[in-house]
Amino acid sequence: MKSAKVSQIPLFTTHEDPRDAVVASHRLLIRAGYIRKQSSGFYTQLPFAIIVQQKIEEIIRDEMNQAGAVEVKLPVLTDAELWKTSGRWDIMGKEMMRFNDRHGNPFALGPTHEEAMTSLTSGFLKSYKQLPVNFYQIGTKYRDEIRPRYGLIRCREFTMKDAYSFHMDEECLESTYQKMRIAYRNIFSRCGLQTLTVQADSGNMGGSASEEYMVPSEIGEETLLVSGYEENDYKSNQEKTGFVPATPYEKIPSVSEPRKIPTPNLKTVEDVAAFLKTNIKNFIKTVIYENNEVVIIAFVPGDREINEVKLKNISAQGEFEMAGLETIKIITGAAPGFAGPYALLVKDGQKIKLEKTEKTICIYYDRNLLQRGELVSGGNETDIHYVHLQEGRDFSIPEDQKNLDLVLAHEGDLVPDNSGKMLKSTRGIEVGHIFKLGYKYATAFKLTVLDKNGKTHMPAMGTYGIGVGRTMATVVEQNHDDKGIIWPESISPFKIYLIGIFKGDEQKTKIDELFLKLVELSYTVYYDDRNENPGVKFNDADLTGFPWQIIAGKNYLASGEMEIKNRKTGEKTVTTMDKLSEIVRV
Amino acid sequence: MKSAKVSQIPLFTTHEDPRDAVVASHRLLIRAGYIRKQSSGFYTQLPFAIIVQQKIEEIIRDEMNQAGAVEVKLPVLTDAELWKTSGRWDIMGKEMMRFNDRHGNPFALGPTHEEAMTSLTSGFLKSYKQLPVNFYQIGTKYRDEIRPRYGLIRCREFTMKDAYSFHMDEECLESTYQKMRIAYRNIFSRCGLQTLTVQADSGNMGGSASEEYMVPSEIGEETLLVSGYEENDYKSNQEKTGFVPATPYEKIPSVSEPRKIPTPNLKTVEDVAAFLKTNIKNFIKTVIYENNEVVIIAFVPGDREINEVKLKNISAQGEFEMAGLETIKIITGAAPGFAGPYALLVKDGQKIKLEKTEKTICIYYDRNLLQRGELVSGGNETDIHYVHLQEGRDFSIPEDQKNLDLVLAHEGDLVPDNSGKMLKSTRGIEVGHIFKLGYKYATAFKLTVLDKNGKTHMPAMGTYGIGVGRTMATVVEQNHDDKGIIWPESISPFKIYLIGIFKGDEQKTKIDELFLKLVELSYTVYYDDRNENPGVKFNDADLTGFPWQIIAGKNYLASGEMEIKNRKTGEKTVTTMDKLSEIVRV
Repeated sequence: MKSAKVSQIPLFTTHEDPRDAVVASHRLLIRAGYIRKQSSGFYTQLPFAIIVQQKIEEIIRDEMNQAGAVEVKLPVLTDAELWKTSGRWDIMGKEMMRFNDRHGNPFALGPTHEEAMTSLTSGFLKSYKQLPVNFYQIGTKYRDEIRPRYGLIRCREFTMKDAYSFHMDEECLESTYQKMRIAYRNIFSRCGLQTLTVQADSGNMGGSASEEYMVPSEIGEETLLVSGYEENDYKSNQEKTGFVPATPYEKIPSVSEPRKIPTPNLKTVEDVAAFLKTNIKNFIKTVIYENNEVVIIAFVPGDREINEVKLKNISAQGEFEMAGLETIKIITGAAPGFAGPYALLVKDGQKIKLEKTEKTICIYYDRNLLQRGELVSGGNETDIHYVHLQEGRDFSIPEDQKNLDLVLAHEGDLVPDNSGKMLKSTRGIEVGHIFKLGYKYATAFKLTVLDKNGKTHMPAMGTYGIGVGRTMATVVEQNHDDKGIIWPESISPFKIYLIGIFKGDEQKTKIDELFLKLVELSYTVYYDDRNENPGVKFNDADLTGFPWQIIAGKNYLASGEMEIKNRKTGEKTVTTMDKLSEIVRV
Repeated sequence: MKSAKVSQIPLFTTHEDPRDAVVASHRLLIRAGYIRKQSSGFYTQLPFAIIVQQKIEEIIRDEMNQAGAVEVKLPVLTDAELWKTSGRWDIMGKEMMRFNDRHGNPFALGPTHEEAMTSLTSGFLKSYKQLPVNFYQIGTKYRDEIRPRYGLIRCREFTMKDAYSFHMDEECLESTYQKMRIAYRNIFSRCGLQTLTVQADSGNMGGSASEEYMVPSEIGEETLLVSGYEENDYKSNQEKTGFVPATPYEKIPSVSEPRKIPTPNLKTVEDVAAFLKTNIKNFIKTVIYENNEVVIIAFVPGDREINEVKLKNISAQGEFEMAGLETIKIITGAAPGFAGPYALLVKDGQKIKLEKTEKTICIYYDRNLLQRGELVSGGNETDIHYVHLQEGRDFSIPEDQKNLDLVLAHEGDLVPDNSGKMLKSTRGIEVGHIFKLGYKYATAFKLTVLDKNGKTHMPAMGTYGIGVGRTMATVVEQNHDDKGIIWPESISPFKIYLIGIFKGDEQKTKIDELFLKLVELSYTVYYDDRNENPGVKFNDADLTGFPWQIIAGKNYLASGEMEIKNRKTGEKTVTTMDKLSEIVRV
């Protein structure tokens, strides 16, 4: 259906702002009748949203096909065996929705499909002749967000395009990766969306290179650190950004042996620093995490936060959370807040016994503690700190950790590219993500092909995702005003909103004819043929946001003159049917 | 992507028959590389299936839009609250997949969307001016089949088109119902599928009229009873078919009071009948079911089976299963197999106490026991039967049950339309189903609109479903031979399978040019440009089943002569490019 009347596709516009909508796209997509909330994180798509999404999907298909990718569709519901094979059944955490079928077999609603795709291709790919190949699908994904919000931007059921490529070597992977970069740039630009490409962490996806396509936005849940916004500027997700302090930490040797200082009633690190007359830069901050298998203890400079993503990647122990009181007591012998590397009760690799289980200790040091003295830390005794600590004497960073980066970088730190520039911070919404996955899944699923010489060879993989609903929402974030949405022509449900102003059937018939004429000329038109007053129609036209409005009223009925309004500029032009195409291209 | 080479869209053909495939569509869709099994009841759609499904969906969209329906998309995952509002949370049984989200809130993977749709419209429909309206969606549905089988015919994740209409009155509902009948007929016929329309039970959907679109097939899981196969012949799902015995049960009065007869060591009803020298027609068969709330006891003539669907509709107590030993003991005082209406220990409406719970007794009699005497039944005592039983004296069918039909009709019974014809039996696969729902969901969700006089009015509803994947599979069931699939042109992935037979790059280039020429002429072509021997290509062309094959080899390279093969008829014609369109229409 290319064109329609209100009596064919109803308007779902509403005048009330939804209570939980704090961002423009959420508010406008609901008010303009594109989506309705069913329950927290679940939205119904109404007719206009269906058309917008179909148009976005067609753009994605077109670019993916042009880039040589092939469309398939994997089941949404995935057998737990797949996730167990890759080891992600335990890693994916609560965001993956799981349940048992009637026979008690565990399943998950796929938040992503590396496992299912690698399993599929391991039964199909036999020879180097079949490579490279890049399979994509457009389908429903699930993520049990702890706090769904912002409408389509962070919901629990959403549409994604995900693609998975297979290659004989890294060079070939690189070539497809570059093709995907071009395809992604084209897709977002054809949707009228301005994005930043930033370096990203590959998270629990495994793999090496990874880039995110970010829509800069104050409401973005991702913090981006950039040297600038030009093509060649450094741009990175905060999670991924290497930490280079603007002023390096001084390496002052300790003047004496460690000394124990009672620090009762001092609540914060700042209090202790003031009491000890030192700077929190000289403190060692200790962070303790655990999961069912391990306890992870990490030490970073006292003035900085730990970057949990870096720690997660380095430790490779899956998800973890802050350690509980029982664990802290066993490790430090003290109340929380007094842990430190000196006089710690446990060593790296040691197994500790908890009430119900046994866990292994894993200790990590940030490189910014290396060779430093005059350090202060908790004394592993309640209300006790140590001063005069010296790395290499009182505690030692192991050889393989001397370049470990565990710190969350911030605006004001140096850009980690030796340019000497400072990082600036901005926020962004992720709409796309491309990864070089490497061999993680091929290894897990024993995916091999025969090479030219008849030897088995493991293909390298890449994966490429786009949030389809999120693309729709971010286009609205970037394209709206206080009256409503302003769609780019490429994905607008219709090109023209035809506002008929008439009294009685005879007048209406003339405007019905105008509608048919426009359709005949191949315009896509939404014809507001309601018996409503013009103000209501003007408001709904602005709110729903199609790029052009044609107002056909008294003048049209008298002399064929229509008013054309450009929704974006607000510019109005009076014209007649024969000159319409000079203003509005078909 | 309209046309493609094997190097662009790979062939997934395979020579092994899948072990679990017993039906043609399952076997061929896998062998021809349209689908692959992921796990029991879950299939990946490969590129050709994606195209077929998109074509079926486009036909559905086109017919639904023409019939005035409007496309939306409801979330697949549905909040349990919706199901509790309608009461179906308890009724849907194990086929509905359920789980709790991270906050412990229960959800279900929607097998159908009456609740979600009525909930949506109850927030949107305000006035009679908005009616009638018919919303449809094409999306993923889930059903946790106890035994998934036949590939796409009975799987656990599948695509459905479901539509829900809302009306001011039954007359308007009838008008949309008739429009849907036409749309459905067009959809199936445009897909090249021959269907039978049969009267159906509306199951746990509620509502009055209901018709199923059946593909006649030996592997069909539905039994159909028909008077013939013409337009106006009686056609009904066995579940729904009214029972009219070819020879009415005789109403012979009992010659004496009930008499107790010991019947030890007689294993079957036939044994007892032989021992008592009577016919099993004169037996009363007793069937006992229970669920958490009720025990349902039903009596039918001894020579017939109970129709559980009829009993379920009459009792309106949701799902139930065969009663357990404990329950039978309490009701009859005997071992299983000796229940009967005379000397039964319980009465209709009575509450009985079981070990863990209390249940209410509900008793139902089939109308074919009315006024009959000389009946035999179990004596509610182990190894005991009663003879000389008389309805109205020894047990009585209540006034409101005197026309109750509880019997499963069979081939050979009379057509329940007073025509005097006999029912014939056939099997069918359900591909579509239309219902008049009435007011069940509108009532549950308090859906009302204002009528012309400003009074609140409850809309009547209809619902209309099509199994999209099942349509694809049944087309293959009806269109294949021992070499593979034979697609109808309307939904074939491509019109032409181009078999290039060449040696060396120079010859290949000429056939590459032929491919481009065909594409230029707007044919959709799949070009087998592999370096394989011709036999492999011929087999794959037959297996994948596109309607036309063009074989371009030696003769084409020498003189431009191509061989055209019609996949369906096997007819071969030699022609040249300039005359191609006389044989294969663009």
